[in-house]
Amino acid sequence: MNPSNLENVLSQFQAGELSSADTVARIQNLSYEDIGYARVDHGRAARQGFPEVIFGQGKTSEQICGIFEKLVERSPNVLITRTNEDVYGDVRNILTDAEWHESPRLVRVMRDTTDLGVGEVTVCTAGTSDIPVAEEAALTAEAMGNRVQRIWDAGVAGIHRILGERERLQASRVIIVVAGMEGALPSVVGGLVSVPVIGVPTSVGYGASFGGVAALLGMLNSCSSNVTVVNIDNGFGAGFTASLINRKFTEP
Amino acid sequence: MNPSNLENVLSQFQAGELSSADTVARIQNLSYEDIGYARVDHGRAARQGFPEVIFGQGKTSEQICGIFEKLVERSPNVLITRTNEDVYGDVRNILTDAEWHESPRLVRVMRDTTDLGVGEVTVCTAGTSDIPVAEEAALTAEAMGNRVQRIWDAGVAGIHRILGERERLQASRVIIVVAGMEGALPSVVGGLVSVPVIGVPTSVGYGASFGGVAALLGMLNSCSSNVTVVNIDNGFGAGFTASLINRKFTEP
Amino acid sequence: MNPSNLENVLSQFQAGELSSADTVARIQNLSYEDIGYARVDHGRAARQGFPEVIFGQGKTSEQICGIFEKLVERSPNVLITRTNEDVYGDVRNILTDAEWHESPRLVRVMRDTTDLGVGEVTVCTAGTSDIPVAEEAALTAEAMGNRVQRIWDAGVAGIHRILGERERLQASRVIIVVAGMEGALPSVVGGLVSVPVIGVPTSVGYGASFGGVAALLGMLNSCSSNVTVVNIDNGFGAGFTASLINRKFTEP
Amino acid sequence: MNPSNLENVLSQFQAGELSSADTVARIQNLSYEDIGYARVDHGRAARQGFPEVIFGQGKTSEQICGIFEKLVERSPNVLITRTNEDVYGDVRNILTDAEWHESPRLVRVMRDTTDLGVGEVTVCTAGTSDIPVAEEAALTAEAMGNRVQRIWDAGVAGIHRILGERERLQASRVIIVVAGMEGALPSVVGGLVSVPVIGVPTSVGYGASFGGVAALLGMLNSCSSNVTVVNIDNGFGAGFTASLINRKFTEP
Amino acid sequence: MNPSNLENVLSQFQAGELSSADTVARIQNLSYEDIGYARVDHGRAARQGFPEVIFGQGKTSEQICGIFEKLVERSPNVLITRTNEDVYGDVRNILTDAEWHESPRLVRVMRDTTDLGVGEVTVCTAGTSDIPVAEEAALTAEAMGNRVQRIWDAGVAGIHRILGERERLQASRVIIVVAGMEGALPSVVGGLVSVPVIGVPTSVGYGASFGGVAALLGMLNSCSSNVTVVNIDNGFGAGFTASLINRKFTEP
Amino acid sequence: MNPSNLENVLSQFQAGELSSADTVARIQNLSYEDIGYARVDHGRAARQGFPEVIFGQGKTSEQICGIFEKLVERSPNVLITRTNEDVYGDVRNILTDAEWHESPRLVRVMRDTTDLGVGEVTVCTAGTSDIPVAEEAALTAEAMGNRVQRIWDAGVAGIHRILGERERLQASRVIIVVAGMEGALPSVVGGLVSVPVIGVPTSVGYGASFGGVAALLGMLNSCSSNVTVVNIDNGFGAGFTASLINRKFTEP
Amino acid sequence: MNPSNLENVLSQFQAGELSSADTVARIQNLSYEDIGYARVDHGRAARQGFPEVIFGQGKTSEQICGIFEKLVERSPNVLITRTNEDVYGDVRNILTDAEWHESPRLVRVMRDTTDLGVGEVTVCTAGTSDIPVAEEAALTAEAMGNRVQRIWDAGVAGIHRILGERERLQASRVIIVVAGMEGALPSVVGGLVSVPVIGVPTSVGYGASFGGVAALLGMLNSCSSNVTVVNIDNGFGAGFTASLINRKFTEP
Amino acid sequence: MNPSNLENVLSQFQAGELSSADTVARIQNLSYEDIGYARVDHGRAARQGFPEVIFGQGKTSEQICGIFEKLVERSPNVLITRTNEDVYGDVRNILTDAEWHESPRLVRVMRDTTDLGVGEVTVCTAGTSDIPVAEEAALTAEAMGNRVQRIWDAGVAGIHRILGERERLQASRVIIVVAGMEGALPSVVGGLVSVPVIGVPTSVGYGASFGGVAALLGMLNSCSSNVTVVNIDNGFGAGFTASLINRKFTEP
Repeated sequence: MNPSNLENVLSQFQAGELSSADTVARIQNLSYEDIGYARVDHGRAARQGFPEVIFGQGKTSEQICGIFEKLVERSPNVLITRTNEDVYGDVRNILTDAEWHESPRLVRVMRDTTDLGVGEVTVCTAGTSDIPVAEEAALTAEAMGNRVQRIWDAGVAGIHRILGERERLQASRVIIVVAGMEGALPSVVGGLVSVPVIGVPTSVGYGASFGGVAALLGMLNSCSSNVTVVNIDNGFGAGFTASLINRKFTEP
Repeated sequence: MNPSNLENVLSQFQAGELSSADTVARIQNLSYEDIGYARVDHGRAARQGFPEVIFGQGKTSEQICGIFEKLVERSPNVLITRTNEDVYGDVRNILTDAEWHESPRLVRVMRDTTDLGVGEVTVCTAGTSDIPVAEEAALTAEAMGNRVQRIWDAGVAGIHRILGERERLQASRVIIVVAGMEGALPSVVGGLVSVPVIGVPTSVGYGASFGGVAALLGMLNSCSSNVTVVNIDNGFGAGFTASLINRKFTEP
Repeated sequence: MNPSNLENVLSQFQAGELSSADTVARIQNLSYEDIGYARVDHGRAARQGFPEVIFGQGKTSEQICGIFEKLVERSPNVLITRTNEDVYGDVRNILTDAEWHESPRLVRVMRDTTDLGVGEVTVCTAGTSDIPVAEEAALTAEAMGNRVQRIWDAGVAGIHRILGERERLQASRVIIVVAGMEGALPSVVGGLVSVPVIGVPTSVGYGASFGGVAALLGMLNSCSSNVTVVNIDNGFGAGFTASLINRKFTEP
Repeated sequence: MNPSNLENVLSQFQAGELSSADTVARIQNLSYEDIGYARVDHGRAARQGFPEVIFGQGKTSEQICGIFEKLVERSPNVLITRTNEDVYGDVRNILTDAEWHESPRLVRVMRDTTDLGVGEVTVCTAGTSDIPVAEEAALTAEAMGNRVQRIWDAGVAGIHRILGERERLQASRVIIVVAGMEGALPSVVGGLVSVPVIGVPTSVGYGASFGGVAALLGMLNSCSSNVTVVNIDNGFGAGFTASLINRKFTEP
Repeated sequence: MNPSNLENVLSQFQAGELSSADTVARIQNLSYEDIGYARVDHGRAARQGFPEVIFGQGKTSEQICGIFEKLVERSPNVLITRTNEDVYGDVRNILTDAEWHESPRLVRVMRDTTDLGVGEVTVCTAGTSDIPVAEEAALTAEAMGNRVQRIWDAGVAGIHRILGERERLQASRVIIVVAGMEGALPSVVGGLVSVPVIGVPTSVGYGASFGGVAALLGMLNSCSSNVTVVNIDNGFGAGFTASLINRKFTEP
Repeated sequence: MNPSNLENVLSQFQAGELSSADTVARIQNLSYEDIGYARVDHGRAARQGFPEVIFGQGKTSEQICGIFEKLVERSPNVLITRTNEDVYGDVRNILTDAEWHESPRLVRVMRDTTDLGVGEVTVCTAGTSDIPVAEEAALTAEAMGNRVQRIWDAGVAGIHRILGERERLQASRVIIVVAGMEGALPSVVGGLVSVPVIGVPTSVGYGASFGGVAALLGMLNSCSSNVTVVNIDNGFGAGFTASLINRKFTEP
Repeated sequence: MNPSNLENVLSQFQAGELSSADTVARIQNLSYEDIGYARVDHGRAARQGFPEVIFGQGKTSEQICGIFEKLVERSPNVLITRTNEDVYGDVRNILTDAEWHESPRLVRVMRDTTDLGVGEVTVCTAGTSDIPVAEEAALTAEAMGNRVQRIWDAGVAGIHRILGERERLQASRVIIVVAGMEGALPSVVGGLVSVPVIGVPTSVGYGASFGGVAALLGMLNSCSSNVTVVNIDNGFGAGFTASLINRKFTEP
Repeated sequence: MNPSNLENVLSQFQAGELSSADTVARIQNLSYEDIGYARVDHGRAARQGFPEVIFGQGKTSEQICGIFEKLVERSPNVLITRTNEDVYGDVRNILTDAEWHESPRLVRVMRDTTDLGVGEVTVCTAGTSDIPVAEEAALTAEAMGNRVQRIWDAGVAGIHRILGERERLQASRVIIVVAGMEGALPSVVGGLVSVPVIGVPTSVGYGASFGGVAALLGMLNSCSSNVTVVNIDNGFGAGFTASLINRKFTEP
């Protein structure tokens, strides 16, 4: 955050020119820290209920660690997604609490484990190969204060596998369905429950699956009306939104 | 629903072979009515909290009316989407309560107006031409028991238009953002709030917008992590899911 | 067929230069009739077990009638697909036996109703709007000597609808599944049975369904290994191949 | 399979609450074994006439071996597709009967060689580079109890090569045609025979072949009506479906 | 042509500043006539051996007639492609020699019928519906001084139809093959002859033919090395290039 | 503009809480007028040097006229693009100064004709059919205070046509090149001059031009580094940006 | 070639059952050699004027050498395209005459250098990076008996570079133009000459060039009517067809 | 440049056959140097105000150095884009002034630092990963004589980050906006300013971003009319055109 901006806001507040509500809002919206290659957005925690996650892909270890240091000072829980074990080594030198999750290639700091949800978040996959993306979603939802249950390898070619989990599905507040190939599982799950379903297409597939596009199209064209979709392999986004759906809400 | 199937379930229940919970579940899942060209799914109301909407597109007026008659006997609120005024004429002969909404080309029966939500659903559009799709979303959410506020024509080329609505946005439980062209508005809105945002790409656009694909891709690649997406022009799906997000939830 | 070609073959046969097997093969392969704008392929009945169907789309009524006259002289059963009622009027002037099928827009002559199959061909659809394509498949299979059972509107969003038909499905020799939108039904059906399933994507759909491409990709990427696919809306091809699968086979 | 589920079914059966037919069906449908990362589907052999094949791609050697151990206890014939020689090494430690097939990169256990077909399955390729995919199809069909004949490198640019095999083609019960580039061979073969033809597009090609999409489109648009298609490079699916077509069938 | 430009060139020539060869080249290259909405290119006849054809599509009848009047003064043979009978009416008022060709929707003036070729141009089609495009090619080639033979409806599903024409094909100097659907015919023809083959994909097709893209890709990926391709439905371009191939050539 | 917002700004200004520069900025940014279906953006003229143009496509005549009335009160020059003559009739009832331009289907009010540019804007087209899009660009640039010269029908197949205009091109401040088909003209023009070139692909074309995508890709991949691109058929955007490039600029 | 097939043909000939012309044709068409993984097509030289080239890509060195040995016994000139230096090492052990061409990664045997053409084949490129593909074309054309001239790096961004070669271009019998990026050069060259132009798009490019698709579309949509196209990077096909165009032709 | 060509021009000039203006033009247009694999275009500096940049990608180090030597003799500032540190090593042996820029992988020689612009060029990015492309643009603009300001990591998900830079943006003569993912930043920036904005889509992204296509489409469909676009990752082109926009212009 640019200090002179903050001073302006505060002096306006002191002079009675800004109400206290406006002052809060301005500070929240102005608050980022410019470290050259990135503007670290501390205000987002206040605005969205969670610190900015670090997308590891396309950033150097130095950049990741630089941003991480700024975030970890203020937020109990931090995620680094799409990274590798070398970066994890560097990150651990900054904070030994950091955990390495091999399957989704994700670093997590989780110092606050309060349950913030009204119910449970369920994450299920169509196949074994979809597990890494599903774990990204599940670990994110946990870090944002949710109880999470996992259902792996329950694709539609053996429909009894998902039908056998009907009760657990129907007791969830929100369901994340991770599937590659034809992406049919969200439609089937969506038809079994009366809560929101978030479909995550994965790039798992062969031939004309086009790196997940077939699954993406399948989910977008779902005949179940309670299915929304995130980008291919975007487990983080699914876990993030599911957390917001599961949050307690009180009208202002 | 096939009567003999129901008899079977009931006699098993009477004989003590099925618990009462199982009996309820089976009846819910088996209950549809086969009228030849369609299996009218009365069970869906129990499973999903809403009767099956009739997608008008690709069905004859006779088919629509046949299905409508079955649904309207049991459900207070019914929607027919993507239809036309001629069908509305036929539908009105069955039920005079039916309302015609010109802009989204939708018939609505709304005999129950109980508020079922914990907060408000906001629907906003980037441009004037996105209003028909947005109205489909808003009318659906209202029919499912939600208070709905509308913000029209607040696209990112004049960013002050959406910023001026920040307070209303931040007070919503869930936000539907309808946009064509580059589909950038959900990212901006998503960054301003800490609730789920549902993006609806519209087929409004010119040249390389490819009937909404550009907007769809824009939303799928949103840099705001609380954005999920439905199919192009699928206002109904957005309104439906927003309603489920806004529902009061009690863990079973 | 060019008469001089036939004479050559026959005189070679008479002279002992060709075995009788070779003579049969040559006649089968050479037999077509050149009527200027088309080479009517009478040999195909012998080669494939069915006369050449007339694809009506892109042909004038004159061309269709010209070809029809040649075919109907020799084949008891003839189909004209993708045509219209005007053409049917002209065709009826040639042969009053011709039937008009409104939903698939198809003319059928069916003077031979012998059952040639070892079992039953089942045709099922995901939705009401898929029925025209499914009827094209069913009428074709009937014309080629099959018993056909129809299951309409059993899509995966209400999975109990198709599960309720499990027994009929499992008793079939071959199953045709017609579906638009996400095209998930063939995968579910494929997982329930141990016979070949032919998926027919339809152009029914909205938004990013791309005229059936989403359904096509869904079926190509099916996680059930007994699913093969034909082109979008190609009910005829599905009915044709299903008939060949259902045929009695004796090794030569 | 969840043992308590099975007990339930059996006790219901003993109590006369379930017919013996229903009991069989339930056991078939419920029978999978949950080993954490996968639900091994022993019921599929009963439902589809073959154990679940293991797709090696995207799975670790540990996962493959874990699933393999479960399958090999009950099924005489097992396939691992799209794997590598290292996995084969690990698999051989479990079962020395396992064979390694270099060209299709496939492990096969084949302890039962009974002929289950009514005729012969023919597999042919357009070019030399299509052989690996074709071998996957041929080895699958053999493992499922079929006699298989192979015809390699008979593409349409030298049309006499496939015409010279006309007799062998016409004596087959079902034909698999594997082709890259323009994918024209299935159309030509389809026109020569009166049995089903399964087209397998391969990713062999250059320039605007788009990894097999050109061949896929060619086959989907085939002017021969007896051609159905599987996904690009999906030799396994073609071999699997061809086996089901070649099976003896007795109506229940 | 701008007269003052011509004067400049001529006066330079007279002054000995330009060689006669240079003078010829300059006049050829500078010669167009600016009529406001178009620059009529009289030089092209000299540069390419044929006057500019008028593409009717996207031009008003006034524009077409305006250009036509300029061209017809100097060229014995003129074509207007992709036009309609109303335009033909207007054109006939300018020149009664103009012929109307219904199938390709083309106007032709052909006042010079000298044979300029070293051999024959063959045009063949896969189906009846490809004839309009093929006629555009054939009429163009005739107008450019070629003998043309036509072979209609000889697609690969009945391979004997094209094999029966092998002799005529092998005697041609250049072959144009017009095909929709999978576009396989050019590959087969290309393999039968040792002359150039020009493939013309047509937009004839259904489902995943994508308005001719499937056929286009098929031809681009042809396994016969003597096949080159023009744009979808571009019969004119094929006829034009075939004429240039068939021209007598004397090295300068 | 929300009056209470304006009052706030003004009272803050009066109280000395806002500098006069800040007051100007705020008023510019806040100033839009909410008329229900649209937020008319009067501030844009100040921010961008031109009032909001009305895109006619997808709006009713009532909506267009409603917006038009608001704009025309304050701006001397107004454009309505992609509209039709009926709308023009309604618009003329509001303001008789409005001109109708048939070729680009555009209404223009041009009451201020001051020359605001440092040089000339040149608009050229590859073909006759590209003129409507080019006129949209030219009329826009004129309305924004530029001298415009037009060069029509100078495509690369007759390269001397564009070379003959080299001098006029080299004297321009900025050049708009409008082309369909392969979109090659911007590359050639770009190589001849040392000023910015704006490429406008048009949807003019046949076969695999895909509604302008081929031209768009051609321009994006231009080997001339001074070429930037706008959307297909977006003459308005090209004229708008060219005007900004041609503007006199004084550093603040 | 299957010897017994040949014997049959010859004995029929001897018996007077086949004319000598028919005998020649049959021998040409039947003559291939089945070596297991490939059917080496010796007849193609007779049918097409050149032995089958070996596409190296996707074949093992053993397969390449096996085919090479068969071809080199009968044909003076042989090409192996898309291969590598290791294969060249193996090939040289078979025939020391083989030359290695680094840039196009091609092995050539050229023992016959007779000039078979009526004129010259010109190959030109837009850029330096297009040279490898252009060399493949040029080396092929030379191996097929043509004089070849090369013009490198003459793209349209500096239009004077190709204009400076106008005379050489206009003296050619056929021109191959190799270009990546926007693929505009064939249109410009096509407009300068009155001979056939073969466009070869290359995969050279950045961003939205899509591996040569942008160039391919550019060439397919060429506004010059004498341009035909081959697949991306298919220098061989261009060289092959250019040779056939340049051949002396005598009508049979 | 071909010396004899130059002699011709000069002797014509001396003879009074060419005016001095024409002589200048001809020399500028003819001046390139043919070094075999490339035609080094010294005339471009005169025609476009900058020497030809060397695109390193797809060229060998030898080719790059060969071209570099020719350019560096005459131009004070030279760029080599998309290259690597090994090439830089070779280049430094030729000229020690050459600088290596790691992030954009670019070599720059900058011996002339005169300010040629009327204002400032601003380059901003949406994220940290877009910096390499943005640096390519910034370094290019500097080398062409511009003052450049950089704004990094100001994407729309935290809209206050770009709004905080409004003043700097509004003071620029031209703005380059570099963004991956949904590509929304140019629309927002475009709406804040009244100068031209050049959008550069980057290939940074995940899932359905398709290597930058999503961002490209977003920018092409921008609702801000002052946005033009260059190819994906084409920082050089953006910097080049921005320089031309920022140039002082005097009408000839």
